[in-house]
Amino acid sequence: MPRYAFKIEYNGQPFKGWQRQDNLPTVQGAVEDALRKLQPDFETIAAAGRTDTGVHGLAQVAHADLARDWDTFRLSEALNYHLKPHPVAVLETAPVADDWHARFDATERRYLFRLLHRRAPATHEKGLVWQINHPLNLDAMQSAATYLIGQHDFTTFRSTMCQAKSPVKTLDALEIDERAVPYGTEYRFTFRARSFLHNQVRSFVGSLERVGAGAWPPEQMKDALDARDRAACGPVCPPGGLYLAGVSYPNDPFTGQ
Amino acid sequence: MPRYAFKIEYNGQPFKGWQRQDNLPTVQGAVEDALRKLQPDFETIAAAGRTDTGVHGLAQVAHADLARDWDTFRLSEALNYHLKPHPVAVLETAPVADDWHARFDATERRYLFRLLHRRAPATHEKGLVWQINHPLNLDAMQSAATYLIGQHDFTTFRSTMCQAKSPVKTLDALEIDERAVPYGTEYRFTFRARSFLHNQVRSFVGSLERVGAGAWPPEQMKDALDARDRAACGPVCPPGGLYLAGVSYPNDPFTGQ
Repeated sequence: MPRYAFKIEYNGQPFKGWQRQDNLPTVQGAVEDALRKLQPDFETIAAAGRTDTGVHGLAQVAHADLARDWDTFRLSEALNYHLKPHPVAVLETAPVADDWHARFDATERRYLFRLLHRRAPATHEKGLVWQINHPLNLDAMQSAATYLIGQHDFTTFRSTMCQAKSPVKTLDALEIDERAVPYGTEYRFTFRARSFLHNQVRSFVGSLERVGAGAWPPEQMKDALDARDRAACGPVCPPGGLYLAGVSYPNDPFTGQ
Repeated sequence: MPRYAFKIEYNGQPFKGWQRQDNLPTVQGAVEDALRKLQPDFETIAAAGRTDTGVHGLAQVAHADLARDWDTFRLSEALNYHLKPHPVAVLETAPVADDWHARFDATERRYLFRLLHRRAPATHEKGLVWQINHPLNLDAMQSAATYLIGQHDFTTFRSTMCQAKSPVKTLDALEIDERAVPYGTEYRFTFRARSFLHNQVRSFVGSLERVGAGAWPPEQMKDALDARDRAACGPVCPPGGLYLAGVSYPNDPFTGQ
């Protein structure tokens, strides 16, 4: 059976996360339902990252085995037709080898987190940012972030529900910038790692926000990390500002066009 | 009674336009309802521009006479509290003279139109752009736009429902740029004029899109303008990409902070 990889963009607001759940709206369920319109016996797709309720995808990657060969442009178009009216779009479809795996072959995952400081409520970006009412100190957050980069035991920053075998991961990059927006400031956090623990990014951002707000000195991030204790984490921030922004593979099957 | 000016941002998707209508959701109705939470006998606000169903506001301006003096920060905060959960936000409140008028004192209005060319459906920006499936020629659209700038009889480009006394208006600027977005191109049209006719911007964009698509040579825009005939207009484009982006006054009451 020919295997295809899909690059998928979605707005997470109406979904109970990526992973299929009986009788609940999920992104995986929406994509599989669309595939079943093309092939009634279709069963399941595998994705690079499971995103939680309300988390968005800019470039999630998944793969599926189909019963016949497809022209990739026509397959993208057919899936997008059947995905309506869900806010889910197949950006690109690519043929891949029979043993290519969206999850196990991934060498890097990238996440974006958008945090808006503004008094007036977000209107066009409601659900697409985490909004707070107080200003943040960018330098302090950047200083605290340096403690997190590299290989560490991230027990402090993972959900107690996390199923990963080890809490040891390597964070390759954590960059924070700010940009002026009307009547406010948007902070963008970008994260790169081979893989992440459950709730790791939202635990990082929730703790970094405490530093930016002045409630934590930057050095407390190191103390929190060293504690290897979930209780040392800052508040886990809400999901609406989080985006799975990209996945890398040794031989990227996508053209980006 | 002290008069206050408000700068208002809104997502037009859930509303039947700005102007209050009985038993229909409108932006004006939402703001007036919020004002009545502060002052039960409050009656009506006046705005710089009436936006149609599905059209957005980045910086609509309106004014109201209130029964008592307010600290402007507290007034913005109170209105934003009572506007929830509508996607409407008061960005700034400013005290103005008793004879200051949001509509009649305005010397310039600015509109933004966002047009997305992409095969895959918009997900995060659904309802916030007009999406098309075919590429556009920017140079051709820019060339056609030059015919529209200046003082003209714009009968071709106004709704037959337009209530303006004269179809003669002066378009001070019409600029178009393009930017790459993932798997597509976004075209941004910006318009500046003292005032606009009903459906003028959407008539312009619908006609410019025909030029960009190659269906009209750029010179047809001049022919359409000279015809002074509504039938010579291209298709009026959908409202979702249109934003009232700003209003100018001789002495701007807002600080922008």
